[in-house]
Amino acid sequence: MSLYIDAAHCRPTSRAPIWIMRQAGRYLPEYRAFRDKYGFLDMIRTPEIATEITLQPIRRFGFDAAILFSDILTVANALGADLSFVEGKGPVIANPVRSLHDASQLVSTDIRLSLDYVSRAITLLKSELGATPLIGFAGAPFTVASYMVEGSSSRDLRTLKQFMYSAPDAMEELMDRLVRATADYLNMQIEAGVDSIQIFDTWAGLLSYPEFQEWVIRPIRALLNRLRNPAGVPITIFAKGTSAFWNDLTQLPIQVLGVDWQADIPALGQLINPGIALQGNLDPMMLYSPSDVLKKRVLRLLEPMANRPGYIFNLGHGILPDVNPDQVKLVVDTVKEYGYERVYS
Amino acid sequence: MSLYIDAAHCRPTSRAPIWIMRQAGRYLPEYRAFRDKYGFLDMIRTPEIATEITLQPIRRFGFDAAILFSDILTVANALGADLSFVEGKGPVIANPVRSLHDASQLVSTDIRLSLDYVSRAITLLKSELGATPLIGFAGAPFTVASYMVEGSSSRDLRTLKQFMYSAPDAMEELMDRLVRATADYLNMQIEAGVDSIQIFDTWAGLLSYPEFQEWVIRPIRALLNRLRNPAGVPITIFAKGTSAFWNDLTQLPIQVLGVDWQADIPALGQLINPGIALQGNLDPMMLYSPSDVLKKRVLRLLEPMANRPGYIFNLGHGILPDVNPDQVKLVVDTVKEYGYERVYS
Repeated sequence: MSLYIDAAHCRPTSRAPIWIMRQAGRYLPEYRAFRDKYGFLDMIRTPEIATEITLQPIRRFGFDAAILFSDILTVANALGADLSFVEGKGPVIANPVRSLHDASQLVSTDIRLSLDYVSRAITLLKSELGATPLIGFAGAPFTVASYMVEGSSSRDLRTLKQFMYSAPDAMEELMDRLVRATADYLNMQIEAGVDSIQIFDTWAGLLSYPEFQEWVIRPIRALLNRLRNPAGVPITIFAKGTSAFWNDLTQLPIQVLGVDWQADIPALGQLINPGIALQGNLDPMMLYSPSDVLKKRVLRLLEPMANRPGYIFNLGHGILPDVNPDQVKLVVDTVKEYGYERVYS
Repeated sequence: MSLYIDAAHCRPTSRAPIWIMRQAGRYLPEYRAFRDKYGFLDMIRTPEIATEITLQPIRRFGFDAAILFSDILTVANALGADLSFVEGKGPVIANPVRSLHDASQLVSTDIRLSLDYVSRAITLLKSELGATPLIGFAGAPFTVASYMVEGSSSRDLRTLKQFMYSAPDAMEELMDRLVRATADYLNMQIEAGVDSIQIFDTWAGLLSYPEFQEWVIRPIRALLNRLRNPAGVPITIFAKGTSAFWNDLTQLPIQVLGVDWQADIPALGQLINPGIALQGNLDPMMLYSPSDVLKKRVLRLLEPMANRPGYIFNLGHGILPDVNPDQVKLVVDTVKEYGYERVYS
């Protein structure tokens, strides 16, 4: 087993494991060297490249878990979304879903065929990673639906909300397809050998509570109910901006609650079921601070969590592309040096 | 007294009072008629125009409270920020604060002189409003500081956070000046006759919990400690995105907690001190929905709150500029028709 898997199951560990959301990304010069040569979608669709990119931060920093280099919109793409990545704008979907007709016209695809490249990348990675566990992932149905309706990133989801409030049948149809396709996708990843799964619900925090229950909790529960997970790989849910709703989230059949940087993780550690692990939550922008400030803030997170079995160090959101990798090294070193012995002894 | 003031003090009322953040604004054709003729800053600086704009939604909808037509950046402007409003971009500050030197160069101004136009607008309004209470307001020090450092709206406060993490002395200097100037400003408003005060901390939710305590809770407490409020006008704090930190917020000496649309207001009603009123929190985008859906969602908010003295109906953020005023009328009518008798009887 590994520190990461042990912590995910709330087993005591000698120190907190650490990985970082978007750890295989643009802040690394070795990533940019690939990105200069290849399109983003080509990179995730080529198992050899996806494998190499996934391994880069493991080699450089010795993170305690690797996360598959891919994107949360692979499933949208498989369902017929005409996806591209526009420099400086992020994902763009040329054929957004805006009606029940649009939703019903989505492709009925066999995810195992259309996203076979992900399965092949996982197989390659498992042969390269040795003892380091591999995290597979998917976008949660709501967040993927948001992109499919908006057609691009949106700071307020105005188009999605107009759609959701005025055409709940169409939203239901879209979400139902996403639940089924995402379950197929995660089942494929589990069969291919991932050691853990994280579900990203990036935009869940923009919903009011009744909509959060309807379009976040209900579909994720339906998705989790469709998983075939004989080995019991731990499941993490990361729903940005929703820590106030920890009670709904921790009633889901999950092992780890990932929390954003706005949450008070020590307080959550007291509130939630002690059988659920916590993951997070340094402000990604804290990596812009002077190293002495950064180190103090990492310790400030570690100290209150040291006595709670089930804590995984991470940022509270993805690492930003202009962060200095030396700052990441400082974070990793600080976490690794902070053995829990000093607390237990 | 009035429904709004009674509810703010948690006294039982016959129904929930209603007002709406940004109720005097661009969604009203009568507002746009003025805006077409005058610059935004000219409008807020001319007491007769500010009075007229403040009264427009009271005349049209009979809201239970008026809120002074002004802007949260008046104090920044008085301290020397070169403020303008750019169509489609919002506020722009041409001379942002980026160092301790910049912060120490801010103008030492007598707010009573530099913002005298606000005092005059309040005097005019009090003579026009009759029994309808008038809400004064200010931006919280952190949110005003955010604009002063960023120089414009920012979705992630990257510049502010770099400043705050790397130059805490400069941040402290800036915040200290804002605390004192904002206290002077609110004391002036109270003397001029406002019946209530709301403090807006729009960007507080982007901070991690330690920074929230340091740059939101601590300065607001210092600000409130400087208020001279002999008649005890109720104080509301609205700090968007921070409902998870209700315990810190409700330990402030406030009467009303304003909550954004993401919060679960009935759950908060069970958690917080019963002596503190709650205000909120319909998703502003809900006003895009069909009228039957909208009405149901208004009732869904009212029903669980009917048994808790101290509830003020509002949106969970400012009304959006493209909302149909008929939808606002439907919300107001629904709230006014929902007498609490039907629950108590």
